[in-house]
Amino acid sequence: MSFNTFGRVFRFTTWGESHGPALGAVVDGCPPGIALGEADIQPWLDRRRPGQSRFTTQRQEPDQVRILSGVFEGRTTGTPISLMIENVDQRSKDYSAIAQAYRPGHADYAYDAKYGLRDYRGGGRSSARETAARVAAGAVARAVIPQVRVRAWVEAIGGDAIDDAAFDDAQIDANPFFCPDAGAAARWEEKMDAARKAGSSLGAVIACEATGVPAGWGAPLYAKLDSELAAACMSINAVKGVEIGDGFAAAALSGEQNADPMRPGADGTPAFLANHAGGIAGGIATGQPVRVRVAFKPTSSILTPVPSITRDGTPTEVMTRGRHDPCVGIRGVPVVEAMVALVLADQALLHRAQCGIS
Amino acid sequence: MSFNTFGRVFRFTTWGESHGPALGAVVDGCPPGIALGEADIQPWLDRRRPGQSRFTTQRQEPDQVRILSGVFEGRTTGTPISLMIENVDQRSKDYSAIAQAYRPGHADYAYDAKYGLRDYRGGGRSSARETAARVAAGAVARAVIPQVRVRAWVEAIGGDAIDDAAFDDAQIDANPFFCPDAGAAARWEEKMDAARKAGSSLGAVIACEATGVPAGWGAPLYAKLDSELAAACMSINAVKGVEIGDGFAAAALSGEQNADPMRPGADGTPAFLANHAGGIAGGIATGQPVRVRVAFKPTSSILTPVPSITRDGTPTEVMTRGRHDPCVGIRGVPVVEAMVALVLADQALLHRAQCGIS
Amino acid sequence: MSFNTFGRVFRFTTWGESHGPALGAVVDGCPPGIALGEADIQPWLDRRRPGQSRFTTQRQEPDQVRILSGVFEGRTTGTPISLMIENVDQRSKDYSAIAQAYRPGHADYAYDAKYGLRDYRGGGRSSARETAARVAAGAVARAVIPQVRVRAWVEAIGGDAIDDAAFDDAQIDANPFFCPDAGAAARWEEKMDAARKAGSSLGAVIACEATGVPAGWGAPLYAKLDSELAAACMSINAVKGVEIGDGFAAAALSGEQNADPMRPGADGTPAFLANHAGGIAGGIATGQPVRVRVAFKPTSSILTPVPSITRDGTPTEVMTRGRHDPCVGIRGVPVVEAMVALVLADQALLHRAQCGIS
Amino acid sequence: MSFNTFGRVFRFTTWGESHGPALGAVVDGCPPGIALGEADIQPWLDRRRPGQSRFTTQRQEPDQVRILSGVFEGRTTGTPISLMIENVDQRSKDYSAIAQAYRPGHADYAYDAKYGLRDYRGGGRSSARETAARVAAGAVARAVIPQVRVRAWVEAIGGDAIDDAAFDDAQIDANPFFCPDAGAAARWEEKMDAARKAGSSLGAVIACEATGVPAGWGAPLYAKLDSELAAACMSINAVKGVEIGDGFAAAALSGEQNADPMRPGADGTPAFLANHAGGIAGGIATGQPVRVRVAFKPTSSILTPVPSITRDGTPTEVMTRGRHDPCVGIRGVPVVEAMVALVLADQALLHRAQCGIS
Repeated sequence: MSFNTFGRVFRFTTWGESHGPALGAVVDGCPPGIALGEADIQPWLDRRRPGQSRFTTQRQEPDQVRILSGVFEGRTTGTPISLMIENVDQRSKDYSAIAQAYRPGHADYAYDAKYGLRDYRGGGRSSARETAARVAAGAVARAVIPQVRVRAWVEAIGGDAIDDAAFDDAQIDANPFFCPDAGAAARWEEKMDAARKAGSSLGAVIACEATGVPAGWGAPLYAKLDSELAAACMSINAVKGVEIGDGFAAAALSGEQNADPMRPGADGTPAFLANHAGGIAGGIATGQPVRVRVAFKPTSSILTPVPSITRDGTPTEVMTRGRHDPCVGIRGVPVVEAMVALVLADQALLHRAQCGIS
Repeated sequence: MSFNTFGRVFRFTTWGESHGPALGAVVDGCPPGIALGEADIQPWLDRRRPGQSRFTTQRQEPDQVRILSGVFEGRTTGTPISLMIENVDQRSKDYSAIAQAYRPGHADYAYDAKYGLRDYRGGGRSSARETAARVAAGAVARAVIPQVRVRAWVEAIGGDAIDDAAFDDAQIDANPFFCPDAGAAARWEEKMDAARKAGSSLGAVIACEATGVPAGWGAPLYAKLDSELAAACMSINAVKGVEIGDGFAAAALSGEQNADPMRPGADGTPAFLANHAGGIAGGIATGQPVRVRVAFKPTSSILTPVPSITRDGTPTEVMTRGRHDPCVGIRGVPVVEAMVALVLADQALLHRAQCGIS
Repeated sequence: MSFNTFGRVFRFTTWGESHGPALGAVVDGCPPGIALGEADIQPWLDRRRPGQSRFTTQRQEPDQVRILSGVFEGRTTGTPISLMIENVDQRSKDYSAIAQAYRPGHADYAYDAKYGLRDYRGGGRSSARETAARVAAGAVARAVIPQVRVRAWVEAIGGDAIDDAAFDDAQIDANPFFCPDAGAAARWEEKMDAARKAGSSLGAVIACEATGVPAGWGAPLYAKLDSELAAACMSINAVKGVEIGDGFAAAALSGEQNADPMRPGADGTPAFLANHAGGIAGGIATGQPVRVRVAFKPTSSILTPVPSITRDGTPTEVMTRGRHDPCVGIRGVPVVEAMVALVLADQALLHRAQCGIS
Repeated sequence: MSFNTFGRVFRFTTWGESHGPALGAVVDGCPPGIALGEADIQPWLDRRRPGQSRFTTQRQEPDQVRILSGVFEGRTTGTPISLMIENVDQRSKDYSAIAQAYRPGHADYAYDAKYGLRDYRGGGRSSARETAARVAAGAVARAVIPQVRVRAWVEAIGGDAIDDAAFDDAQIDANPFFCPDAGAAARWEEKMDAARKAGSSLGAVIACEATGVPAGWGAPLYAKLDSELAAACMSINAVKGVEIGDGFAAAALSGEQNADPMRPGADGTPAFLANHAGGIAGGIATGQPVRVRVAFKPTSSILTPVPSITRDGTPTEVMTRGRHDPCVGIRGVPVVEAMVALVLADQALLHRAQCGIS
């Protein structure tokens, strides 16, 4: 099946292929009266835009967003917001090789097995290019929940992690890796240059934190806040793991070590003395920062030939030339942020629906 | 909000609290003509049943399932299947302490913050007791996809992992830990006894494998197979992390190390030379075994007092006496299996809806 | 497919067959803190209960509802509310005739064509007995929107309509026909007696009015208030037509005749000078009374033999003996009310989700 | 709330306002491998296109559809199909009058009451112009179920109905009224000219028949085929009533009169001797033609001044100058067809999902 809509009441639907004329998102259920223009969306797309450093794909796409509906005189009207981004730099190259052979690690074989045919140009619908539409929709989500700040960064590349003690929020946008640790950024530059030159690729871990999420958001049991975040993040290209709070590390702890003690807070809400839980209990936000970690596998597109087969089952070797991200996790940062914002906006409205307060 | 339905076309809705008269599930969208009786469901519930060893809660619940609708003369009719399990061993103890103080790490505070009131008896709706209904629904899912085998086990307790070389499928049901490694099971027995006596608790990692999943199942982009699995597993009580295939380990690899090369297979389908991807590419099954790993935090119920607050904001210390699982991950095994089976049954029908073949 | 859930955020799922052990509904998404007990639900079920006059089926069912979850100390908790009604008077008669021959006008053939098998006892899932679960769920809906009054009555039986000038609200519950016109009720008594003695049946038209619906409820474009009401009413057994406001009569009018002029009202809202629209414009409530009319066909169960076929295609004649409603429309009154209340409760929460006010 | 998606597995989402830059639909869940191009969609849009006779609005819109995604090398890929139609003839007139006063019978007041603001240019989202997107989506639906023929016509205008004996399918596309009765078409021409000159408007009744629908389609209980058709048709602008089969007329019949007797058919399926039911029993198709009737109210835009109020509550009189359809029901014909096709395509896939056959 094809399910290209995400969300319960604040919903978005994306469409578009890597090499089609355009791609886009329709955002439905947005509250009315919110100030919104293309200028509110474009900066987020610009963060994700390819070709901004030698560490991302060299495809040149301006990724200019157009709002085609749902906004009138600078404010949302409550009707569907149609966002469109034209594709500009689709190279009209010969796709005959890729059309017949399956790139290992890519979705080529799976799409063919499912649908019996596929748009093989640049990966078609399975291309990470689709995430531009998510980032555009995510900008609308941010406008719906202005009290929340969603912030992501790269925590590790190829197994080389940042030093938490060196964390500096200002660094995140100061280097091409969204890296909060200047020392790690310097190391990653070398690491990435080496990988790039070798035609190799590297995996990455992204961390994301949402502050300002009020206690109460969450929709147990099957739209729990953590469950929705896991679905949202796992739907991003190349993602293979999601953790909330301490995640897998918590599985190695005892109950005493993992406790998040509470004390009376200043304003009647609890003051938590720890946040192993990542701000969520029973699927509901506790008011602490919501913390998510996301694992991106290394891009499957590498210059080393990998054994594969053709559509008719003949053995072949595939090496992927052309423009690609040597570490797709890097540009995953604005995408993770967008997905987290989209989940939170939906949960905000859901909470208001049932509990009457936002 | 409250969303107690899971699934797109094969859907189930659960209801019930830990200390209410009963709990249950309504399974909707099940194909007709499938042989189904209570005897097909009960064995899976028995695997999850509490009180079977000293390492799980001592609450005695027979967990007898009744089919109240949707089955006629031993076959499913295509109409909703109502499954009910009566609660038997709800101790009529005094809940006044727990009613007023928030147990740290539990959902007590979050439910109160959300709903303004809560059924505090045994955790109410947030109790892991609800997972009995999932296991019952999961048994129906298994009957829908008999070609698929879903099998889970405990991979680590408190950070002590099995030795992969010692993996023995026959061991899984031969010890109280669903442990495939007899040596690890022996170590865990000591470990768990120590934790139990200390009134402590331990986290665990569960691994699950589904074999027989045909290439093509999956519903990109926002109901991708991996995305649905992540949502399903993260919705289980105490789960804090989900991985597909190599998961976070893949983030430390290069593209060459993470490649899953393909060779022509015997029957026209590819023979994969590795399975880093865990059987899923682009959100669609590749035909390889589907592999999921799930992190369970240690039970928050411990005998060590933890600082907390009361409903009116007074500081207090909470220690949780009474019956609880010292390692909730153990009984998570049949629950993870059920959720994986439920996702796969739904994806099977979704695939048939769009692509016409099952 | 089988879709037994209705609603967007305030949702209910029904289950159960005519001759199974029980039937029920799970209501999900209900706001917390609402006073609710079985005594709030039972009176509505009692209005629909069979066997209360000679004009309805003689099956004796107490239709006692039990609340199995979602209510604690007399208040809703925000978690799913499970409602169950046991079947008591399923006669253990021989169903072999009905099992093999299709009753014309019933769902027998259609269910067989769809599912390949069916629970033929009393119509199984297609029996109007299922509507008891809707009425129970509808009682919860009423509690969610106490500001709204939903009131239905029978407007015509067998083509014999009430006199609008004789409309008396107090009459509706004073005769066995939910008839607001005492004169018509007297006529219908004769009419129904004649039909009953002849083993015949009669169709009916139900009218329903909801007052207190605030302007703004409605979810354009594909969950418009009128669209949801049409779906809700058309899902009731034997219903073949739905009108909003003037309905088909409006199609014969000119724009001048159909106008609903507005004047300034007392409290800042408009005072409408007519209500041809039935309280809905553009799928959104205008603040006027919401008016729906519903056509019920005559019960297909009649004593006159009707040509039919058996499962293996042999011609036969079917006459339906046994207990049935000679005018199913009569007991449709509480069912229509329930469905209208359920739609309105859902729309109330949807409106609050997006627009922040209830 | 705003819900702009329709369908369960074959789903479409529309967006766009009357005077925005464009409008469109995203069709999701379409099976792969179906031949589809703009030339398959355009003819259906052309049937609905305004300005083709003096009896419809004089707004000139070419309504050229573009496929932006989901089709590759002339075939659907199984991914979302984005359809876009640019608005061309939005007159840049002064909207200040309409911006402040509510047009009676229109959605102006209701949108303002709901959202607190509205795009008043040409009715914004509540304009019937949105139905162009439905017709485009409907063309995709037709391609999904080529075995089904969906055909609608106008049955009555302003209370003047066709003569069933004069029904001639070939006439339907031979006059500007989609009228199958040449005599009625001649009368309507006079009637419409009179209304047009008087600045008045007229209501209409549309009939629609779908042949080739196999027995078994339908998703009881809350996505019954008739329930979905009612929702689909009632969501069309100006619709106030929906009937299945004999509809309200059935409510005046006895069970004998309303019976649809069955005889053995040629191919193992029943031969029905009547079709009072309109091809649906228990919410499931019986294999007979599916019959729907839809009531359109007269357009509210008339030249006769109607009392109304301004946004600030001041009394005023509103007469609607400008371009509008004097009988919106006429152009409703392709829209009803589209909605019926969309419901049937969805039900076809749902049936395949659960019952494994299409």
